[in-house]
Amino acid sequence: MTVGDLGEFGVIGRIAGRLPQGAAVLLGPGDDAAVLSAPDGRVVVSTDLLIEGRHFRRNWSSGYDIGRKAAAQNLSDIAAMGADPTAIFVGLGMPADVTTDWLDALTDGFRDECALVGASVAGGDISRSDTVVLGVTALGDLGGRRPVTRSGALPGEVVAVAGRLGHAAAGLALLQAGRVGPDVVSGPSGPPEGVPRGGAEGRAVAGDGGIEELLSALVDAHRRPRPLYACGPGAARLGATAMLDVSDGLLQDLDHIAEASGVRIELDPGAFPVGPALAAAARALGADPLEWILTGGDDHAFAAVFPSDVRLPEPWLVTGRVTEGEGVHVAGRADTWGGWDHFRNSHD
Amino acid sequence: MTVGDLGEFGVIGRIAGRLPQGAAVLLGPGDDAAVLSAPDGRVVVSTDLLIEGRHFRRNWSSGYDIGRKAAAQNLSDIAAMGADPTAIFVGLGMPADVTTDWLDALTDGFRDECALVGASVAGGDISRSDTVVLGVTALGDLGGRRPVTRSGALPGEVVAVAGRLGHAAAGLALLQAGRVGPDVVSGPSGPPEGVPRGGAEGRAVAGDGGIEELLSALVDAHRRPRPLYACGPGAARLGATAMLDVSDGLLQDLDHIAEASGVRIELDPGAFPVGPALAAAARALGADPLEWILTGGDDHAFAAVFPSDVRLPEPWLVTGRVTEGEGVHVAGRADTWGGWDHFRNSHD
Repeated sequence: MTVGDLGEFGVIGRIAGRLPQGAAVLLGPGDDAAVLSAPDGRVVVSTDLLIEGRHFRRNWSSGYDIGRKAAAQNLSDIAAMGADPTAIFVGLGMPADVTTDWLDALTDGFRDECALVGASVAGGDISRSDTVVLGVTALGDLGGRRPVTRSGALPGEVVAVAGRLGHAAAGLALLQAGRVGPDVVSGPSGPPEGVPRGGAEGRAVAGDGGIEELLSALVDAHRRPRPLYACGPGAARLGATAMLDVSDGLLQDLDHIAEASGVRIELDPGAFPVGPALAAAARALGADPLEWILTGGDDHAFAAVFPSDVRLPEPWLVTGRVTEGEGVHVAGRADTWGGWDHFRNSHD
Repeated sequence: MTVGDLGEFGVIGRIAGRLPQGAAVLLGPGDDAAVLSAPDGRVVVSTDLLIEGRHFRRNWSSGYDIGRKAAAQNLSDIAAMGADPTAIFVGLGMPADVTTDWLDALTDGFRDECALVGASVAGGDISRSDTVVLGVTALGDLGGRRPVTRSGALPGEVVAVAGRLGHAAAGLALLQAGRVGPDVVSGPSGPPEGVPRGGAEGRAVAGDGGIEELLSALVDAHRRPRPLYACGPGAARLGATAMLDVSDGLLQDLDHIAEASGVRIELDPGAFPVGPALAAAARALGADPLEWILTGGDDHAFAAVFPSDVRLPEPWLVTGRVTEGEGVHVAGRADTWGGWDHFRNSHD
């Protein structure tokens, strides 16, 4: 069955029927607008537009993974302000020949990623479109905390990251090179939740089978980021002075903090561990794993700046420091790598 | 110059530079997320996805009008809950060859429509896309009022509307029939704000020149709805028990109230004035103006249900009543008209 068979209101009913609503949702889907609880008296809001062929491919990622990823990249923006996500809203454009199975998988992906942080899909809009288009908006509550912006970093502070870096970029490179087949799965299978820092890199590896497993884990990382959501509000509680989630590449994103804060950021390239998965992918493609780590987007790790006397718990990893000056510099290497520009780069 | 020449961050800077931020915006564009004031402790949220060729055409509407319309249809959803809009967020996908002039006009359209209600464009996202795509999310504050949903209508109450009905549909029909050329203007020209109920229908008409002017006003109504925003929170204060904005057609939209409230709605077809503009368009196209009024979408009038003892001020117009039963019925006519279904209808 396709969404064209169901019709607009059939599709809306089908989607809404799969979506439980959390306590923050005072009025859910089905009216002109939803009503959410905003106990803090302020609300944090972020929006992203995802276009088929540009941000995802249906032959490279399942509907489920596309839903997970689209939710994740917005929820991580909320967490990167130090807020707790409460709800997302999804504008969904799709061709009439999209199957209801694919739609269900997409819906479940949104639902399951939201459930990781106690948020709900509280509303949306659907339309016919030649390709799949997702307009996702996430909201969050600050719980009395000050929002952690990009402009508060001070010389003398340290730069730390929490979460994987370079994995999604390596996975995308493996897909682009045809080194790993798409092998798209449609359901909520894949590695278990609660992946520790480093992810599959910690696994035991034995022989060639192990290498394929490592590479496959990188492709999974491209399909489905695993932001360590709790680190966002956690960083705010620890006293972070600036923070963002790494979506376009660490160098480019940290440069936003450097510019907004009027400081220079110096990164220590030796501080970034290159685990077996990135090392294996780099060997397979003749690539530099540090380039993926420093310029790869889409992992949605958190990068934050803390006063130097803050004792940072796991999984935070200190990777650099803030000084007077401007820009982002990597010790011993000229910064000639670019980041992602939506009008100048292309996946195609 | 095109957006491709500017690049992603150039585009973001250019857009943000044209957007003043209101008092409700505690942190505006430029970070992972915005922070809005939500003094009520609840926030009202609505999202819409607009696709070029389906919801608008760049050869039929200027960038400015597309921005106005995209903002209006979301802001009116917020007002239809009885809330005051505070901000919108815009996900904008567009080809790299879009001109900066067009982008500026679109931005100004969003800005000016928001300004009508004291709201701001507080954030967004841009991406390259083969066609123009807009994902718009609006937020609002209830100011201590109960949200007016679709489910509160009771038998014995009256149905009233505020705002134009059928004008946008007639204007679209004129464009589709080639009866009025597109004659797209790119700037914030057009009829003055604060159009009274009935719009151009109140104008003096003299000869054929008058008729062209009337028809042109209908095309303007298609390009740019003029919701009477204050009527939304106003209806909540008057004690409205159910409300929505008419986006898909009065019959179809009132049916949502009938279904959600478990009631029957009876409309009096004689209660709807057919002014000179709709009459002229109906003559020009051999159409039934009442069909536009009852089934035409996109005017974003408010339709609400009130207890029968409420004295309704202008511009509210009583057009029917609520009884026991189900469905929407028009006295003396079989209800055989359809509404809009995004997967079954097509503008093309």
